[in-house]
Amino acid sequence: MSSFPRFGDVAHVGHVELRTPNPDASLDFFTSVVGLHETARSGDSVYLRAWGDYERHTLKLTAHATSGLGHLGLRARDEETLQALVTHLGEHGFTGEWTEDVGHGPAYRVATPDGHAIELYWQTERFTATPAIATAFKNQPQRYVPRGIAPRRLDHINLLARDVTPTREFFQQRLGLRLTEQIILDDRTEAGAWLSATNKSYDVAITRDKTGASGRLHHVTFMMDSREDVLRAADVLRDADVPIETGPHKHNIGQTFFLYCFEPGGNRFEIGAGGYLIFDPDWKPIVWTEAERAKGQAWGLQTVSSFHTRGTPPVEGFD
Amino acid sequence: MSSFPRFGDVAHVGHVELRTPNPDASLDFFTSVVGLHETARSGDSVYLRAWGDYERHTLKLTAHATSGLGHLGLRARDEETLQALVTHLGEHGFTGEWTEDVGHGPAYRVATPDGHAIELYWQTERFTATPAIATAFKNQPQRYVPRGIAPRRLDHINLLARDVTPTREFFQQRLGLRLTEQIILDDRTEAGAWLSATNKSYDVAITRDKTGASGRLHHVTFMMDSREDVLRAADVLRDADVPIETGPHKHNIGQTFFLYCFEPGGNRFEIGAGGYLIFDPDWKPIVWTEAERAKGQAWGLQTVSSFHTRGTPPVEGFD
Amino acid sequence: MSSFPRFGDVAHVGHVELRTPNPDASLDFFTSVVGLHETARSGDSVYLRAWGDYERHTLKLTAHATSGLGHLGLRARDEETLQALVTHLGEHGFTGEWTEDVGHGPAYRVATPDGHAIELYWQTERFTATPAIATAFKNQPQRYVPRGIAPRRLDHINLLARDVTPTREFFQQRLGLRLTEQIILDDRTEAGAWLSATNKSYDVAITRDKTGASGRLHHVTFMMDSREDVLRAADVLRDADVPIETGPHKHNIGQTFFLYCFEPGGNRFEIGAGGYLIFDPDWKPIVWTEAERAKGQAWGLQTVSSFHTRGTPPVEGFD
Amino acid sequence: MSSFPRFGDVAHVGHVELRTPNPDASLDFFTSVVGLHETARSGDSVYLRAWGDYERHTLKLTAHATSGLGHLGLRARDEETLQALVTHLGEHGFTGEWTEDVGHGPAYRVATPDGHAIELYWQTERFTATPAIATAFKNQPQRYVPRGIAPRRLDHINLLARDVTPTREFFQQRLGLRLTEQIILDDRTEAGAWLSATNKSYDVAITRDKTGASGRLHHVTFMMDSREDVLRAADVLRDADVPIETGPHKHNIGQTFFLYCFEPGGNRFEIGAGGYLIFDPDWKPIVWTEAERAKGQAWGLQTVSSFHTRGTPPVEGFD
Repeated sequence: MSSFPRFGDVAHVGHVELRTPNPDASLDFFTSVVGLHETARSGDSVYLRAWGDYERHTLKLTAHATSGLGHLGLRARDEETLQALVTHLGEHGFTGEWTEDVGHGPAYRVATPDGHAIELYWQTERFTATPAIATAFKNQPQRYVPRGIAPRRLDHINLLARDVTPTREFFQQRLGLRLTEQIILDDRTEAGAWLSATNKSYDVAITRDKTGASGRLHHVTFMMDSREDVLRAADVLRDADVPIETGPHKHNIGQTFFLYCFEPGGNRFEIGAGGYLIFDPDWKPIVWTEAERAKGQAWGLQTVSSFHTRGTPPVEGFD
Repeated sequence: MSSFPRFGDVAHVGHVELRTPNPDASLDFFTSVVGLHETARSGDSVYLRAWGDYERHTLKLTAHATSGLGHLGLRARDEETLQALVTHLGEHGFTGEWTEDVGHGPAYRVATPDGHAIELYWQTERFTATPAIATAFKNQPQRYVPRGIAPRRLDHINLLARDVTPTREFFQQRLGLRLTEQIILDDRTEAGAWLSATNKSYDVAITRDKTGASGRLHHVTFMMDSREDVLRAADVLRDADVPIETGPHKHNIGQTFFLYCFEPGGNRFEIGAGGYLIFDPDWKPIVWTEAERAKGQAWGLQTVSSFHTRGTPPVEGFD
Repeated sequence: MSSFPRFGDVAHVGHVELRTPNPDASLDFFTSVVGLHETARSGDSVYLRAWGDYERHTLKLTAHATSGLGHLGLRARDEETLQALVTHLGEHGFTGEWTEDVGHGPAYRVATPDGHAIELYWQTERFTATPAIATAFKNQPQRYVPRGIAPRRLDHINLLARDVTPTREFFQQRLGLRLTEQIILDDRTEAGAWLSATNKSYDVAITRDKTGASGRLHHVTFMMDSREDVLRAADVLRDADVPIETGPHKHNIGQTFFLYCFEPGGNRFEIGAGGYLIFDPDWKPIVWTEAERAKGQAWGLQTVSSFHTRGTPPVEGFD
Repeated sequence: MSSFPRFGDVAHVGHVELRTPNPDASLDFFTSVVGLHETARSGDSVYLRAWGDYERHTLKLTAHATSGLGHLGLRARDEETLQALVTHLGEHGFTGEWTEDVGHGPAYRVATPDGHAIELYWQTERFTATPAIATAFKNQPQRYVPRGIAPRRLDHINLLARDVTPTREFFQQRLGLRLTEQIILDDRTEAGAWLSATNKSYDVAITRDKTGASGRLHHVTFMMDSREDVLRAADVLRDADVPIETGPHKHNIGQTFFLYCFEPGGNRFEIGAGGYLIFDPDWKPIVWTEAERAKGQAWGLQTVSSFHTRGTPPVEGFD
């Protein structure tokens, strides 16, 4: 029990800030098509959450010259752990600064080795439903509102990294996340790493950016209650004229059921469901080889080539 | 970080030992109707697991004069935590003894305040599939085998207690589980408590035994991947001539979808799916009042009266 | 091929007119909670349809002093068949009159032996979507709009009859529907009959009215795409403060998955999914005995006692 | 009512005879992997059915030098209609011969314009369950047996034709099926036609054989109760080492959810679920253009190129 940090010290992915050069259209997509709920506005940002999210927001949309990740918010286990994480990060050369934002207490902002902004925080505001969306389900922050896709909650983020390994180690060693699955190519390159702060099979994924760029975003994912709900989401996207990049299909990694599209700001967005839970506290990471990945996803769908190069902000010459 | 134990120190419910006065019929039920897989036999016991369970067994069936709980196995976070838990228990007057069993390392057996046998262990044998049931899903211990109901995994146990509070405090204070939901009657009696060692909304439930008996079992639950699977399980039970006590329906508590029946040894058995995950590390327990419980389950089904008195072993004069 | 009418001569249940003494609340329920689409208003009536219904309306809500059935619209196979049905009815003593209504051509109105108004018609207006709800699914009349429960289509009607047999024979012999299932009590009374104009296991059900009244309505049913959708509908109803009378559960008859509630006008309303299709052109009706019915629904849920007496309009002294 | 035949005169697709050069492996696939039930053997043939099929068999597997269609069995509405259909066929130059087979009465065997063997019959043997698979669901021929994929029933057949139009007209004009959907290319070629004998959106599909061959089979389809079941079937196929050609995905045509694989004899086999029902007796066929088809399936999956050339028996130089 002496080691620090341990699994559980970062409790979960709290929120994701997406930058969008097309803020009105992005907001319309996330509210009308995805069905998220707006809870605040501040400066160039609009704050959103899904009906099952307990915090004031899980998605922050910020008008910006480019698309891409603003920051990733991670909620610590408690106040004491937050302070210890900050100290620990400093001891390992990850120095950042304390910042403030809507909806939660002081957040310590620090960069991953690949340059993604991370914010660690503890204090948070829990969402309280207005009477119009109050619910008899006492263990749920508000009622289910059937508007658009209506996912239940933020699920995970997938970062792109020029070099996966140091950023994977950052989440694993500096933040205590558990490495659950991994892609190791024939030349020993780590092409992808999936890490978890919870019993879910992943909360943060890091995959190799073949463009050679750093600090980019691959996608953000919200979760449905059932795979049937993902199939219905596909119908909603079609009739909203939002092309599906790939899916619905089942990932080999995590066994989650997925579909991908792009929001109007250019960021990739995933709707998911299912997947397995990990209870083994001594879980051995599952390693996928190049040959295994070449077989495609769980039922044979080939991984689309844009998956390895298209991220946000875009890199010229790649799509 | 100084407090001990903390949430996560008990990693998860590992297995449940059920006693049965009707061992052959119980075994046939759990293999043919439920579709569990036998992995070992020893003495009067047969060891079983579901296709998604990573350990060698999650259900131990033991021939006995009566029905009821043999013991509840809880896997610790690591070896060091196991030892610390044993020390901690002793400091608080819970002294037990080290025992041995098939499938895992040394287990420390201790009784809850209400008398249920608990075993804490760390070392375990992971299940390795034979070629006949090997799977291409590398993150899954074996292939899905469509036999009977075919649940994915053990989910939770519900204990009956003459007095809920001390046993709830035992799991909460001595073992670090998180109290997630609770029933408090008008006279302040704690009629039920739901606790979790994971992000699931509960792993151990304790409900009041209205017969006044101690140490009894209410039910053990295995989990399906979808609610649709629970509906199919109901068909399978019907054609296997296994009456459904109540359900399928949705619990208010945990929002899990459920059905209950009795295995031939007399123990109550639940098939479940769904429910919500808890990510908030500072979750405030949901408290249900007597009036709220009187409204029945989530969609209005009245809780069957046998739920408050029928447990195993049976108490004469109650059913 | 000489017999007339034959199965298929009545093509399907086209629409149901419900009377409501509470028209504003009923309309709000069917649009906001159920999620139907308004397509016309005329006189005291509002015309509604589900997103998958091909005709201009499938539910007509009419303000009236009481609740109950206005009429049941049945669409004939073609014009020639419609005329032949009218002649045939007259030859067997069922004389009615031609009427006009919004959304379809001339309809011949005639009463069942128990007094329910039936309207037979052929010409109809197909629904054409406005651009706002147009769809890329060319074989679907409009896009799926996730509002409230959002059923796909009208499914069936259940009439109450003081004497089931003559009204069952009316649909079977005079209109060519196929008898698919039946309840025959120990004293040979026919307590229920399920008839179909299509490959669905029933389109019209007739069950005995234990109050001794005539011409009453038991319920009208709209259909979801999946049983999972019915479970979601139950959540929507709960948060809309609409009590569920019984269900979700599976009917023995038809194997449909169901839930029942009451619309603000007092009429019983069912949300369903699933069930089996009948392809056998020589289907032998399934007969359920009193003892079999006493076992409850498919998974054991007891049929609620109000099912045998509560209908619309209400009968004093019964509920 | 004077026209003949009319919709409904052919009641449904009764069975399909598949030829296989690999009979033992094909039988093992259809029983162990698909989970069909063997009901008879005769000569070089084994007769199979799904748990929900009411007739003695719906799939006849016949050892043969090549793969491909043996024949397609269509059940007539009644004996009188069967005789009238035979007369009608002869009047239009389609002369065949009466044949005998296991499980049903005399069948009239005739060839489609493209050369596929069709058998029309009326008398049939209904399946009667042995006690081991008897069911409490009285409206179901046997209990659901969870073995392999376990589809409910035979659904449809897809024929390949060198020239779609005459074979489509054969089913439409000579057998009374309803044309429900159609693909018309820019040059006015009819590339595909979907026809139905029931309220399902299709029972027989005919698509253009780009190899120029005649009389070939594209695929045979069995149906699951839910789309979730199709997703599970994909897992079962993967672990049985049966590659999935394409899917799971949603067809634009019929809106059915699908996956395709090949049985060991080489014939394409589909597992499906869902789709819409047609109630309109005056349904206007949905026509898909070349441009619309180029957009892929419902959610954008491109139709695999092998779909236009790979059929059975195989044509040299095409795959």
